[in-house]
Amino acid sequence: MKSFRKELFFTTDKRYQLIHITDAVQKAVNESGIKEGLCLVNAMHITASVFINDNESGLHQDYLEWLEKLAPYSREGYHHNVGEDNGDAHLKRQIMGREVVVAITNGKLDFGPWEAIFYGEFDGRRKKRVLIKIIGE
Amino acid sequence: MKSFRKELFFTTDKRYQLIHITDAVQKAVNESGIKEGLCLVNAMHITASVFINDNESGLHQDYLEWLEKLAPYSREGYHHNVGEDNGDAHLKRQIMGREVVVAITNGKLDFGPWEAIFYGEFDGRRKKRVLIKIIGE
Amino acid sequence: MKSFRKELFFTTDKRYQLIHITDAVQKAVNESGIKEGLCLVNAMHITASVFINDNESGLHQDYLEWLEKLAPYSREGYHHNVGEDNGDAHLKRQIMGREVVVAITNGKLDFGPWEAIFYGEFDGRRKKRVLIKIIGE
Repeated sequence: MKSFRKELFFTTDKRYQLIHITDAVQKAVNESGIKEGLCLVNAMHITASVFINDNESGLHQDYLEWLEKLAPYSREGYHHNVGEDNGDAHLKRQIMGREVVVAITNGKLDFGPWEAIFYGEFDGRRKKRVLIKIIGE
Repeated sequence: MKSFRKELFFTTDKRYQLIHITDAVQKAVNESGIKEGLCLVNAMHITASVFINDNESGLHQDYLEWLEKLAPYSREGYHHNVGEDNGDAHLKRQIMGREVVVAITNGKLDFGPWEAIFYGEFDGRRKKRVLIKIIGE
Repeated sequence: MKSFRKELFFTTDKRYQLIHITDAVQKAVNESGIKEGLCLVNAMHITASVFINDNESGLHQDYLEWLEKLAPYSREGYHHNVGEDNGDAHLKRQIMGREVVVAITNGKLDFGPWEAIFYGEFDGRRKKRVLIKIIGE
Protein backbone atom coordinates (compact mmCIF):
# COMPACT_ATOMS: atom_id res chain seq x y z
CA MET A 1 0.00 0.00 0.00
CA LYS A 2 1.25 3.46 -0.87
CA SER A 3 0.19 6.74 0.71
CA PHE A 4 0.60 10.32 -0.42
CA ARG A 5 -0.04 13.66 1.31
CA LYS A 6 -0.26 17.18 -0.05
CA GLU A 7 -1.66 20.51 1.11
CA LEU A 8 -3.29 23.21 -1.00
CA PHE A 9 -3.33 26.82 0.18
CA PHE A 10 -6.00 29.48 -0.32
CA THR A 11 -6.32 33.12 0.61
CA THR A 12 -9.60 34.30 -0.87
CA ASP A 13 -10.40 37.89 -1.81
CA LYS A 14 -13.92 37.60 -0.46
CA ARG A 15 -15.42 36.46 2.81
CA TYR A 16 -17.53 33.87 0.94
CA GLN A 17 -16.03 32.23 -2.14
CA LEU A 18 -16.13 28.91 -4.01
CA ILE A 19 -12.95 27.78 -5.82
CA HIS A 20 -12.68 24.98 -8.38
CA ILE A 21 -9.89 22.57 -7.35
CA THR A 22 -10.45 19.44 -9.48
CA ASP A 23 -7.28 20.01 -11.50
CA ALA A 24 -5.16 20.53 -8.38
CA VAL A 25 -6.49 17.29 -6.89
CA GLN A 26 -5.90 15.31 -10.11
CA LYS A 27 -2.36 16.71 -10.15
CA ALA A 28 -1.83 15.32 -6.66
CA VAL A 29 -3.15 11.94 -7.82
CA ASN A 30 -0.63 12.03 -10.68
CA GLU A 31 2.20 12.91 -8.30
CA SER A 32 1.22 10.06 -5.97
CA GLY A 33 1.67 7.43 -8.66
CA ILE A 34 -1.36 5.64 -7.15
CA LYS A 35 -3.55 3.94 -9.76
CA GLU A 36 -6.26 2.29 -7.60
CA GLY A 37 -7.34 3.67 -4.25
CA LEU A 38 -9.19 6.35 -2.32
CA CYS A 39 -8.49 10.08 -2.24
CA LEU A 40 -9.59 12.10 0.79
CA VAL A 41 -9.84 15.87 0.28
CA ASN A 42 -10.77 17.90 3.36
CA ALA A 43 -10.79 21.45 4.61
CA MET A 44 -8.29 21.76 7.48
CA HIS A 45 -10.29 24.71 8.84
CA ILE A 46 -13.70 24.57 10.47
CA THR A 47 -15.28 27.47 8.61
CA ALA A 48 -14.60 26.00 5.17
CA SER A 49 -15.80 23.06 3.07
CA VAL A 50 -14.70 20.74 0.34
CA PHE A 51 -17.61 19.54 -1.75
CA ILE A 52 -18.47 18.09 -5.15
CA ASN A 53 -21.03 19.63 -7.46
CA ASP A 54 -21.39 21.46 -10.75
CA ASN A 55 -18.87 23.98 -12.08
CA GLU A 56 -21.57 26.51 -12.98
CA SER A 57 -21.53 30.10 -11.74
CA GLY A 58 -25.31 30.48 -11.44
CA LEU A 59 -25.44 27.46 -9.16
CA HIS A 60 -22.60 28.84 -7.05
CA GLN A 61 -24.55 32.07 -6.56
CA ASP A 62 -27.56 29.93 -5.58
CA TYR A 63 -25.47 28.10 -2.99
CA LEU A 64 -24.20 31.28 -1.37
CA GLU A 65 -27.67 32.89 -1.27
CA TRP A 66 -29.25 29.70 0.09
CA LEU A 67 -26.62 29.26 2.80
CA GLU A 68 -27.15 32.89 3.82
CA LYS A 69 -30.85 32.10 4.22
CA LEU A 70 -30.27 28.91 6.24
CA ALA A 71 -27.48 30.35 8.41
CA PRO A 72 -27.36 34.15 8.06
CA TYR A 73 -24.35 36.25 8.96
CA SER A 74 -24.97 38.01 12.25
CA ARG A 75 -22.51 39.74 14.52
CA GLU A 76 -24.87 39.48 17.52
CA GLY A 77 -26.96 36.43 16.76
CA TYR A 78 -24.60 33.59 17.68
CA HIS A 79 -23.30 32.45 21.05
CA HIS A 80 -20.02 31.69 19.28
CA ASN A 81 -19.52 35.34 18.37
CA VAL A 82 -17.67 36.50 21.46
CA GLY A 83 -14.78 38.40 19.96
CA GLU A 84 -15.56 36.77 16.61
CA ASP A 85 -18.17 37.21 13.91
CA ASN A 86 -17.93 33.92 12.04
CA GLY A 87 -20.63 31.89 13.79
CA ASP A 88 -22.54 31.63 10.51
CA ALA A 89 -19.50 30.16 8.77
CA HIS A 90 -19.37 27.15 11.13
CA LEU A 91 -23.02 26.40 10.30
CA LYS A 92 -22.67 26.96 6.56
CA ARG A 93 -19.76 24.54 6.47
CA GLN A 94 -21.88 21.78 8.08
CA ILE A 95 -24.43 22.05 5.25
CA MET A 96 -21.75 21.86 2.56
CA GLY A 97 -19.58 19.29 4.35
CA ARG A 98 -15.95 19.08 5.48
CA GLU A 99 -14.62 16.51 3.06
CA VAL A 100 -15.05 14.33 0.03
CA VAL A 101 -13.73 10.85 -0.61
CA VAL A 102 -13.17 10.10 -4.29
CA ALA A 103 -12.34 6.78 -5.90
CA ILE A 104 -9.16 6.57 -7.97
CA THR A 105 -9.39 4.18 -10.89
CA ASN A 106 -6.63 3.71 -13.41
CA GLY A 107 -4.86 6.80 -12.05
CA LYS A 108 -7.83 9.14 -12.50
CA LEU A 109 -10.44 10.66 -10.18
CA ASP A 110 -13.35 8.33 -10.92
CA PHE A 111 -16.07 10.89 -11.65
CA GLY A 112 -19.47 11.06 -13.27
CA PRO A 113 -19.99 13.49 -16.18
CA TRP A 114 -20.42 16.74 -14.21
CA GLU A 115 -18.65 16.07 -10.93
CA ALA A 116 -16.11 18.73 -9.93
CA ILE A 117 -14.42 19.45 -6.59
CA PHE A 118 -14.70 22.83 -4.87
CA TYR A 119 -13.18 24.57 -1.91
CA GLY A 120 -15.94 26.49 -0.13
CA GLU A 121 -14.71 29.42 1.94
CA PHE A 122 -17.13 31.00 4.43
CA ASP A 123 -14.71 33.13 6.47
CA GLY A 124 -12.01 34.10 4.04
CA ARG A 125 -9.41 36.77 3.48
CA ARG A 126 -6.87 34.80 5.49
CA LYS A 127 -4.56 31.89 4.62
CA LYS A 128 -6.23 28.49 4.82
CA ARG A 129 -5.39 24.92 3.86
CA VAL A 130 -6.89 21.84 2.24
CA LEU A 131 -5.46 18.37 2.86
CA ILE A 132 -5.22 15.71 0.16
CA LYS A 133 -4.45 12.21 1.43
CA ILE A 134 -4.35 9.30 -1.01
CA ILE A 135 -3.95 5.62 -0.21
CA GLY A 136 -3.83 2.73 -2.65
CA GLU A 137 -1.48 1.03 -5.06
CA MET B 1 -4.17 -4.43 -1.13
CA LYS B 2 -7.10 -5.29 -3.39
CA SER B 3 -9.51 -2.90 -5.06
CA PHE B 4 -12.90 -3.45 -6.65
CA ARG B 5 -15.17 -1.20 -8.70
CA LYS B 6 -18.79 -1.53 -9.69
CA GLU B 7 -21.55 0.77 -10.95
CA LEU B 8 -25.26 0.61 -10.16
CA PHE B 9 -27.82 2.12 -12.53
CA PHE B 10 -31.11 3.82 -11.75
CA THR B 11 -33.89 5.32 -13.82
CA THR B 12 -36.55 6.42 -11.35
CA ASP B 13 -40.26 6.78 -12.18
CA LYS B 14 -40.54 9.95 -10.16
CA ARG B 15 -38.62 13.20 -10.04
CA TYR B 16 -37.91 12.66 -6.32
CA GLN B 17 -37.38 9.12 -5.10
CA LEU B 18 -35.42 7.21 -2.46
CA ILE B 19 -34.25 3.67 -3.28
CA HIS B 20 -32.91 1.08 -0.83
CA ILE B 21 -29.55 -0.24 -2.08
CA THR B 22 -28.00 -2.03 0.93
CA ASP B 23 -28.37 -5.47 -0.67
CA ALA B 24 -26.79 -4.31 -3.93
CA VAL B 25 -23.82 -2.87 -2.03
CA GLN B 26 -23.37 -6.01 0.08
CA LYS B 27 -23.47 -8.03 -3.16
CA ALA B 28 -20.60 -5.90 -4.48
CA VAL B 29 -18.65 -6.52 -1.26
CA ASN B 30 -19.19 -10.26 -1.75
CA GLU B 31 -18.01 -10.05 -5.36
CA SER B 32 -14.91 -8.12 -4.31
CA GLY B 33 -13.69 -10.88 -2.01
CA ILE B 34 -12.48 -8.14 0.36
CA LYS B 35 -12.86 -9.04 4.04
CA GLU B 36 -11.38 -5.98 5.79
CA GLY B 37 -11.43 -2.52 4.28
CA LEU B 38 -13.44 0.54 3.31
CA CYS B 39 -16.34 0.78 0.87
CA LEU B 40 -17.09 4.11 -0.82
CA VAL B 41 -20.58 4.48 -2.33
CA ASN B 42 -21.23 7.74 -4.16
CA ALA B 43 -23.70 9.27 -6.55
CA MET B 44 -21.95 9.98 -9.88
CA HIS B 45 -24.47 12.73 -10.60
CA ILE B 46 -24.72 16.08 -8.85
CA THR B 47 -28.48 16.11 -8.31
CA ALA B 48 -28.51 12.81 -6.41
CA SER B 49 -27.30 11.49 -3.05
CA VAL B 50 -26.17 8.33 -1.35
CA PHE B 51 -26.98 8.35 2.35
CA ILE B 52 -27.51 6.05 5.31
CA ASN B 53 -30.61 6.12 7.45
CA ASP B 54 -33.71 4.12 8.33
CA ASN B 55 -35.63 1.93 5.86
CA GLU B 56 -39.00 3.33 6.93
CA SER B 57 -41.48 4.83 4.49
CA GLY B 58 -42.85 7.48 6.87
CA LEU B 59 -39.36 8.83 7.42
CA HIS B 60 -38.73 8.90 3.68
CA GLN B 61 -41.85 10.99 3.19
CA ASP B 62 -40.56 13.27 5.98
CA TYR B 63 -37.24 13.66 4.18
CA LEU B 64 -38.83 14.63 0.88
CA GLU B 65 -41.23 17.13 2.50
CA TRP B 66 -38.44 18.62 4.61
CA LEU B 67 -36.07 19.00 1.67
CA GLU B 68 -38.87 20.69 -0.29
CA LYS B 69 -39.20 23.18 2.57
CA LEU B 70 -35.44 23.85 2.83
CA ALA B 71 -34.82 24.00 -0.94
CA PRO B 72 -38.14 24.26 -2.80
CA TYR B 73 -38.59 23.42 -6.45
CA SER B 74 -38.83 26.61 -8.47
CA ARG B 75 -38.55 27.12 -12.19
CA GLU B 76 -37.78 30.82 -11.80
CA GLY B 77 -36.18 31.06 -8.37
CA TYR B 78 -32.64 29.84 -9.07
CA HIS B 79 -29.80 31.43 -11.02
CA HIS B 80 -28.89 27.91 -12.15
CA ASN B 81 -32.21 27.49 -13.94
CA VAL B 82 -31.28 28.90 -17.33
CA GLY B 83 -32.63 26.24 -19.65
CA GLU B 84 -32.96 23.91 -16.64
CA ASP B 85 -35.31 23.55 -13.72
CA ASN B 86 -33.25 21.42 -11.33
CA GLY B 87 -31.64 24.12 -9.18
CA ASP B 88 -33.45 22.75 -6.14
CA ALA B 89 -32.01 19.27 -6.73
CA HIS B 90 -28.40 20.52 -6.43
CA LEU B 91 -29.27 22.03 -3.03
CA LYS B 92 -31.25 19.04 -1.78
CA ARG B 93 -28.32 16.79 -2.59
CA GLN B 94 -25.98 18.88 -0.42
CA ILE B 95 -28.23 18.35 2.61
CA MET B 96 -28.39 14.59 2.08
CA GLY B 97 -24.76 14.21 0.96
CA ARG B 98 -22.96 12.77 -2.06
CA GLU B 99 -21.40 9.68 -0.55
CA VAL B 100 -21.02 7.28 2.33
CA VAL B 101 -17.93 5.41 3.45
CA VAL B 102 -18.73 2.13 5.17
CA ALA B 103 -16.35 -0.17 7.06
CA ILE B 104 -16.07 -3.75 5.85
CA THR B 105 -15.39 -6.24 8.63
CA ASN B 106 -15.22 -9.98 8.09
CA GLY B 107 -16.68 -9.54 4.59
CA LYS B 108 -19.79 -7.64 5.74
CA LEU B 109 -20.89 -4.01 5.73
CA ASP B 110 -20.15 -3.13 9.36
CA PHE B 111 -23.49 -1.60 10.35
CA GLY B 112 -25.39 -0.69 13.47
CA PRO B 113 -28.86 -2.19 13.97
CA TRP B 114 -30.90 0.09 11.69
CA GLU B 115 -28.37 1.40 9.19
CA ALA B 116 -29.37 1.02 5.55
CA ILE B 117 -28.01 2.65 2.39
CA PHE B 118 -30.20 4.68 0.05
CA TYR B 119 -29.91 6.28 -3.34
CA GLY B 120 -31.62 9.67 -3.18
CA GLU B 121 -32.83 10.97 -6.53
CA PHE B 122 -33.85 14.62 -6.80
CA ASP B 123 -34.00 15.03 -10.60
CA GLY B 124 -35.01 11.63 -11.86
CA ARG B 125 -36.70 10.01 -14.82
CA ARG B 126 -33.37 9.66 -16.58
CA LYS B 127 -30.56 7.10 -16.35
CA LYS B 128 -28.12 7.74 -13.52
CA ARG B 129 -25.27 5.92 -11.84
CA VAL B 130 -23.83 5.11 -8.43
CA LEU B 131 -20.18 4.13 -7.96
CA ILE B 132 -19.03 1.48 -5.49
CA LYS B 133 -15.28 1.40 -4.85
CA ILE B 134 -13.85 -0.99 -2.30
CA ILE B 135 -10.27 -1.22 -1.08
CA GLY B 136 -8.86 -3.64 1.45
CA GLU B 137 -7.71 -7.21 1.81
CA MET C 1 -2.26 -3.40 4.66
CA LYS C 2 -3.41 -3.46 8.27
CA SER C 3 -6.90 -2.83 9.57
CA PHE C 4 -8.19 -2.04 13.03
CA ARG C 5 -11.70 -1.84 14.49
CA LYS C 6 -13.01 -0.39 17.72
CA GLU C 7 -16.35 0.72 19.11
CA LEU C 8 -17.04 3.62 21.48
CA PHE C 9 -20.16 3.64 23.67
CA PHE C 10 -22.29 6.56 24.79
CA THR C 11 -25.33 6.94 26.99
CA THR C 12 -26.03 10.67 27.17
CA ASP C 13 -27.84 12.39 30.03
CA LYS C 14 -29.74 14.64 27.65
CA ARG C 15 -31.83 14.03 24.57
CA TYR C 16 -29.55 16.38 22.56
CA GLN C 17 -25.86 16.42 23.42
CA LEU C 18 -22.47 16.91 21.73
CA ILE C 19 -19.48 14.99 23.08
CA HIS C 20 -15.82 15.60 22.28
CA ILE C 21 -14.17 12.33 21.15
CA THR C 22 -10.88 13.39 19.52
CA ASP C 23 -8.77 11.84 22.30
CA ALA C 24 -10.67 8.55 22.13
CA VAL C 25 -10.13 8.38 18.36
CA GLN C 26 -6.41 9.21 18.64
CA LYS C 27 -6.15 6.47 21.28
CA ALA C 28 -7.61 4.00 18.76
CA VAL C 29 -5.08 5.17 16.16
CA ASN C 30 -2.29 4.52 18.68
CA GLU C 31 -3.67 1.06 19.45
CA SER C 32 -3.87 0.24 15.74
CA GLY C 33 -0.16 0.82 15.19
CA ILE C 34 -1.08 2.31 11.79
CA LYS C 35 1.17 5.21 10.77
CA GLU C 36 -0.20 6.13 7.32
CA GLY C 37 -3.79 5.56 6.31
CA LEU C 38 -7.42 6.57 6.66
CA CYS C 39 -9.59 6.54 9.77
CA LEU C 40 -13.37 6.25 9.41
CA VAL C 41 -15.43 7.33 12.42
CA ASN C 42 -19.21 6.86 12.09
CA ALA C 43 -22.32 6.80 14.21
CA MET C 44 -23.79 3.28 14.18
CA HIS C 45 -27.24 4.74 14.92
CA ILE C 46 -29.39 6.78 12.56
CA THR C 47 -30.36 9.53 14.99
CA ALA C 48 -26.76 10.47 15.79
CA SER C 49 -23.81 12.08 14.00
CA VAL C 50 -20.06 12.17 14.00
CA PHE C 51 -18.72 15.51 12.82
CA ILE C 52 -15.65 17.74 12.96
CA ASN C 53 -15.75 21.32 14.13
CA ASP C 54 -14.65 23.61 16.94
CA ASN C 55 -14.47 22.56 20.61
CA GLU C 56 -16.25 25.72 21.80
CA SER C 57 -19.35 25.62 23.97
CA GLY C 58 -21.00 28.72 22.48
CA LEU C 59 -20.81 27.17 19.03
CA HIS C 60 -22.29 23.93 20.32
CA GLN C 61 -25.25 25.84 21.71
CA ASP C 62 -25.56 27.55 18.31
CA TYR C 63 -25.62 24.15 16.57
CA LEU C 64 -28.37 22.77 18.79
CA GLU C 65 -30.54 25.91 18.47
CA TRP C 66 -30.01 26.03 14.71
CA LEU C 67 -30.85 22.36 14.22
CA GLU C 68 -34.01 22.87 16.28
CA LYS C 69 -34.98 25.67 13.89
CA LEU C 70 -34.25 23.63 10.73
CA ALA C 71 -35.82 20.39 12.01
CA PRO C 72 -37.90 21.08 15.13
CA TYR C 73 -38.91 18.43 17.62
CA SER C 74 -42.56 17.54 17.12
CA ARG C 75 -44.51 14.59 18.44
CA GLU C 76 -47.22 15.01 15.80
CA GLY C 77 -45.43 16.67 12.92
CA TYR C 78 -43.59 13.76 11.32
CA HIS C 79 -44.89 10.73 9.40
CA HIS C 80 -42.11 8.74 11.08
CA ASN C 81 -43.58 9.38 14.53
CA VAL C 82 -45.93 6.42 14.75
CA GLY C 83 -45.12 5.06 18.17
CA GLU C 84 -41.95 7.20 18.16
CA ASP C 85 -41.12 10.83 18.67
CA ASN C 86 -37.65 11.04 17.14
CA GLY C 87 -38.48 12.12 13.58
CA ASP C 88 -36.59 15.36 14.12
CA ALA C 89 -33.46 13.43 15.14
CA HIS C 90 -33.24 11.64 11.78
CA LEU C 91 -33.32 15.02 10.02
CA LYS C 92 -30.88 16.73 12.37
CA ARG C 93 -28.41 13.93 11.83
CA GLN C 94 -28.49 14.45 8.03
CA ILE C 95 -27.45 18.09 8.48
CA MET C 96 -24.54 17.19 10.77
CA GLY C 97 -23.55 14.01 8.87
CA ARG C 98 -23.09 10.34 9.76
CA GLU C 99 -19.33 10.04 9.52
CA VAL C 100 -15.93 11.61 9.09
CA VAL C 101 -12.89 10.25 7.31
CA VAL C 102 -9.62 11.54 8.74
CA ALA C 103 -6.12 11.13 7.31
CA ILE C 104 -3.51 9.46 9.52
CA THR C 105 0.00 10.77 8.98
CA ASN C 106 2.98 9.65 11.02
CA GLY C 107 0.62 7.94 13.49
CA LYS C 108 -1.45 11.06 14.21
CA LEU C 109 -4.89 12.33 13.15
CA ASP C 110 -3.81 14.79 10.45
CA PHE C 111 -5.74 17.87 11.57
CA GLY C 112 -5.75 21.59 11.00
CA PRO C 113 -5.35 23.91 14.02
CA TRP C 114 -8.92 23.78 15.40
CA GLU C 115 -10.29 20.51 14.09
CA ALA C 116 -11.87 18.29 16.74
CA ILE C 117 -14.19 15.27 16.45
CA PHE C 118 -17.62 15.17 18.09
CA TYR C 119 -20.34 12.67 18.67
CA GLY C 120 -23.69 14.38 18.10
CA GLU C 121 -26.61 12.77 19.89
CA PHE C 122 -30.14 13.78 18.87
CA ASP C 123 -32.16 11.05 20.58
CA GLY C 124 -30.17 10.13 23.65
CA ARG C 125 -30.62 8.68 27.08
CA ARG C 126 -30.04 5.18 25.73
CA LYS C 127 -26.87 3.22 24.90
CA LYS C 128 -25.42 3.97 21.48
CA ARG C 129 -22.25 3.19 19.58
CA VAL C 130 -19.65 4.79 17.32
CA LEU C 131 -17.47 2.71 15.00
CA ILE C 132 -13.80 3.45 14.35
CA LYS C 133 -12.28 1.61 11.40
CA ILE C 134 -8.69 2.29 10.39
CA ILE C 135 -6.84 0.95 7.37
CA GLY C 136 -3.26 1.62 6.37
CA GLU C 137 0.28 0.60 7.22
